[in-house]
Amino acid sequence: MALLVQKYGGTSVGSIERIEAVADRVLKHKQQGDDIVVVVSAMSGETNRLIGLAKSIQATPDVREMDVLLSTGEQVTIALLSMALMKRGLKAKSYTGSQVRITTDNSHGKARIQDIDTDAMRSDLDDGTVLVVAGFQGADEFGNITTLGRGGSDTTGVALAAALKADECQIYTDVDGVYTTDPRVVDSARRLEKITFEEMLEMASLGSKVLQIRSVEFAGKYQVPLRVLSSFKDGDGTLITTDGENTMEQPAVSGIAFNRDEAKLTLKGVPDVPGVASKILGPVSEANVEVDMIVQNVSMDGTTDFTFTVHRNDYDKALNVLQGVAKDLNAKEVLSDDKIAKVSIVGVGMRSHAGVATSMFKALAEESINIQLISTSEIKVSVIIDEKYMELAVRSLHSAFKLNEPNTGVSEA
Amino acid sequence: MALLVQKYGGTSVGSIERIEAVADRVLKHKQQGDDIVVVVSAMSGETNRLIGLAKSIQATPDVREMDVLLSTGEQVTIALLSMALMKRGLKAKSYTGSQVRITTDNSHGKARIQDIDTDAMRSDLDDGTVLVVAGFQGADEFGNITTLGRGGSDTTGVALAAALKADECQIYTDVDGVYTTDPRVVDSARRLEKITFEEMLEMASLGSKVLQIRSVEFAGKYQVPLRVLSSFKDGDGTLITTDGENTMEQPAVSGIAFNRDEAKLTLKGVPDVPGVASKILGPVSEANVEVDMIVQNVSMDGTTDFTFTVHRNDYDKALNVLQGVAKDLNAKEVLSDDKIAKVSIVGVGMRSHAGVATSMFKALAEESINIQLISTSEIKVSVIIDEKYMELAVRSLHSAFKLNEPNTGVSEA
Repeated sequence: MALLVQKYGGTSVGSIERIEAVADRVLKHKQQGDDIVVVVSAMSGETNRLIGLAKSIQATPDVREMDVLLSTGEQVTIALLSMALMKRGLKAKSYTGSQVRITTDNSHGKARIQDIDTDAMRSDLDDGTVLVVAGFQGADEFGNITTLGRGGSDTTGVALAAALKADECQIYTDVDGVYTTDPRVVDSARRLEKITFEEMLEMASLGSKVLQIRSVEFAGKYQVPLRVLSSFKDGDGTLITTDGENTMEQPAVSGIAFNRDEAKLTLKGVPDVPGVASKILGPVSEANVEVDMIVQNVSMDGTTDFTFTVHRNDYDKALNVLQGVAKDLNAKEVLSDDKIAKVSIVGVGMRSHAGVATSMFKALAEESINIQLISTSEIKVSVIIDEKYMELAVRSLHSAFKLNEPNTGVSEA
Repeated sequence: MALLVQKYGGTSVGSIERIEAVADRVLKHKQQGDDIVVVVSAMSGETNRLIGLAKSIQATPDVREMDVLLSTGEQVTIALLSMALMKRGLKAKSYTGSQVRITTDNSHGKARIQDIDTDAMRSDLDDGTVLVVAGFQGADEFGNITTLGRGGSDTTGVALAAALKADECQIYTDVDGVYTTDPRVVDSARRLEKITFEEMLEMASLGSKVLQIRSVEFAGKYQVPLRVLSSFKDGDGTLITTDGENTMEQPAVSGIAFNRDEAKLTLKGVPDVPGVASKILGPVSEANVEVDMIVQNVSMDGTTDFTFTVHRNDYDKALNVLQGVAKDLNAKEVLSDDKIAKVSIVGVGMRSHAGVATSMFKALAEESINIQLISTSEIKVSVIIDEKYMELAVRSLHSAFKLNEPNTGVSEA
């Protein structure tokens, strides 16, 4: 008998039929003898409808009142799901964030959970009751309603699992797990049985929108086993835990991530003296532009080239700032390109194995794909390439690292 | 500077435009220096939408969860109205029933208010903040959300006014006050400046659906001056208080109420012995039929005639029951009629002045309207007549008691 926290997103509870399907699934787990805490989002479309109402009054509504408004979305779902569970003969009880109670700080719209009182939940669980908790919301110490921000229902699920010491936090979505890469790009993309928190973080931050980064961080911090599953079809999904398919002793590539959301800017021929990086990036961040990759190579003739990438939406703004900086620094020229893609291989411990990066560069070279930038972290190698080669690059890497085959332990392609 | 509790119903907050109009009205009062507590209902249509969702899961959903669901309706309105008030530069803050906190018993769907904590509200009011409170809802001692039942927002308004010792509880509706009778029947029907709680109760129970009976009782009990006003046009409305337009020393008729919702049943020739009334009405009430008027006249030859009225929807059921009773009691015959109307004159202290009833009967006689039944209470005289004469009766009584003219103090027609 396990204690499971199951989180269902807006699409999974988007209609009465889908709420009934969730109730069927909970019933099945309950019949298997598990204790269940269900965390739900607002029915899909509801949050946007509420935001629309608020915006028709004021462009930037008061944040406290916005939370009062938005928290009604999940409150509707918990009541309806509880009814559907009782219809199936189960004991069920709904909890709003305030009722749990999930205590947060008072940062309305992006509140952080500080404490969860598990006493009432424990006593209901002992009684065999299925708890249905509103995701995404809590209350500050004075009882003001707060929300955790979009995607916050995942965080609620993980936080409850941690507080209740649940055996697993199951996140039901519209995909049936985490894949070696996007199946729409690579036919043979394969669902991973397991992946580590760190790998999942890299995959998430690189555009695999299966899970909110924050909830993965949270789960990793509290060592809560997370499982991503489909709420539409049966299957084991992907378990995110401390050890993935590849152990530290057998480093390998778990997946290929990619995105074309970025643009690249280069300042050529800047003096290679201490402080130059901050002179370049200072004005950029003052303009509220977030920088992703930063690359500076060794200098030649006392000058160097400095390159960074920004989100494509910030391209014009960043270019503008950079042209001012170039003048101040007496740089040779500004180069820029918003027709780029970022492709990354992700896997635990790969950096200590130079062979993995080499295999990556070789695979790309075989397709005559030129690498414009390289950046590495503990568990990933990212390259910037011409946007038009993105799909080709992903397919060739997926094949080079044999990701279509279940892990054999010999994955240094 | 007065402390006003203003309650706006579902139609008054039925759209963003109407919520903005409510905010304009609150702003005006605030500029006049008043302290304001606003109580709002769910936007019109919303409660029915939520009930529809629940009923599509289960015909009789769990009452606790139903309250969790329905209470979101007002929660949406308090957030939107608070935003609209802040847009106008006012300080505003929303309160759910739980946040106030309005403590009720745990009778979900028809909870009764037990206590209201005014400390937080007082401190916000002292700060110049407009309080926007969700009507219709509260929480029991364990924090479970409860609702007061339909129309409960009026009760919330009155209860808050009593707890805060407000100067007035203003109920904004789609009519501009309480009239001497229905203006759709009598052109010259006149809005009353004042009416007593007792008169209002009689008017309400007789079909003037301006206010919920429960809230009028509540206001009377706690001596909270109630004012009915239109949320769509300016005006003074009608003040419901302990002294109406007519004082005890100058008894007179305040209004004419009427309805054609009833049916009449008579048992002729039943033995005039103790216990016969309960033998007749026992089976009727066991069949869950509510009885309104009950009339029994003096007996002749040891037998008497027993007449009562029921709601027209229960006519067939009541007739069925009565035919069985007639056999048991050996009654002569059962007479029945569902083509009747009830017309009443209402006014404080009229019963001690036989002249008022006499004037009523004379006015009806002049129009050749036959009176089938008569029943009186402290402040009303009701007659049952043929349905087809109803409008004529109302018009002739309205004119006989000079209700089109402001009270002159000489109203015994």
